Amino acid sequence: MSRLDQQLAFLTEADRLKSVLRATTLCDGSRMENSAEHSWHIALYALVLAEHSETDLDTGRILKMLLLHDLVEIDAGDAPVFGDHDAEALAARESAAADRIFGLLPEDQARAFRALWDEFEANETPEAQFAKSIDRMQPPMQNLASGGGSWIDYNVTLDMFETRIGPKINNGAPRIWAWLQPRVAAFFAARD
Amino acid sequence: MSRLDQQLAFLTEADRLKSVLRATTLCDGSRMENSAEHSWHIALYALVLAEHSETDLDTGRILKMLLLHDLVEIDAGDAPVFGDHDAEALAARESAAADRIFGLLPEDQARAFRALWDEFEANETPEAQFAKSIDRMQPPMQNLASGGGSWIDYNVTLDMFETRIGPKINNGAPRIWAWLQPRVAAFFAARD
Repeated sequence: MSRLDQQLAFLTEADRLKSVLRATTLCDGSRMENSAEHSWHIALYALVLAEHSETDLDTGRILKMLLLHDLVEIDAGDAPVFGDHDAEALAARESAAADRIFGLLPEDQARAFRALWDEFEANETPEAQFAKSIDRMQPPMQNLASGGGSWIDYNVTLDMFETRIGPKINNGAPRIWAWLQPRVAAFFAARD
Repeated sequence: MSRLDQQLAFLTEADRLKSVLRATTLCDGSRMENSAEHSWHIALYALVLAEHSETDLDTGRILKMLLLHDLVEIDAGDAPVFGDHDAEALAARESAAADRIFGLLPEDQARAFRALWDEFEANETPEAQFAKSIDRMQPPMQNLASGGGSWIDYNVTLDMFETRIGPKINNGAPRIWAWLQPRVAAFFAARD
């Protein structure tokens, strides 16, 4: 197989991410969101919001990470953030998925993509921290727009949201968390 | 409105691109593709295939162009490449859409995004030419995978494909066109 043969096999396999459904809906609530369009949306979020980071970021690397980060879900599925799952088993499934899916690419490119995915998962560099925070920030925006979405489906309270999600957004994007938190609090207050 | 208010209003409006349907299906033929997941897919195409360009490219700028390029379809709709449409009227609708949609952003960012969209549409810089070619290359890949897709729906012949689409792929990505052309020719030959 030529490099192009391998690369197009990878890109055709990637198409399957469009059929992986998430726990959130579109903003209008009309249907569940899939992981491919979610990946596009958060790349756009990062492009628009990178200026609010605490440090100068390599936006190109963030975009690459966000475009790639969910491909493992083709094999491992989406794990809803408020769902119950065995974190260790999930990490093993996702790592095996990364081996298989990035392994479709020519070896040098497979290594480079795997390194970007590992960087995202490790959540240590400023780019990964910002990317992770953006990935956590878009679903509450969808829920605010659709009138609750996955918060209602998973019986989420403000306390659960602030405990489980807040620190993850605040970690890489504190200014964005400061904008979001009162809006989410107002949503839950209006429901009480 | 603060910058974040404006930016999140833009990002929420962008969600509507997930409901704009294209003329191509997913690779498995299960449903029509939408413009948001298409935008993700071609950004991934560009990331994987940029090495086959004739010149050194600014991949970050290509990714930005591809993430933005279809947002005008929220107002103007998708114009299938083999469909009939008034090119001048479509260009006017898309330009008005770009004014409205990018105009949701803070002014400096609206200008920067509009400049990227104008660069893509003008198809003159190496980055825009490569991005345009990639945007034209993904639908035939979907059609090859799904068994014909929009080629069948629009009664497309190999001659029509080579006349209308070939030059657009060859313009920015001749090595990729050289890979694709015989595969598309073989598909049409097998149907005769």
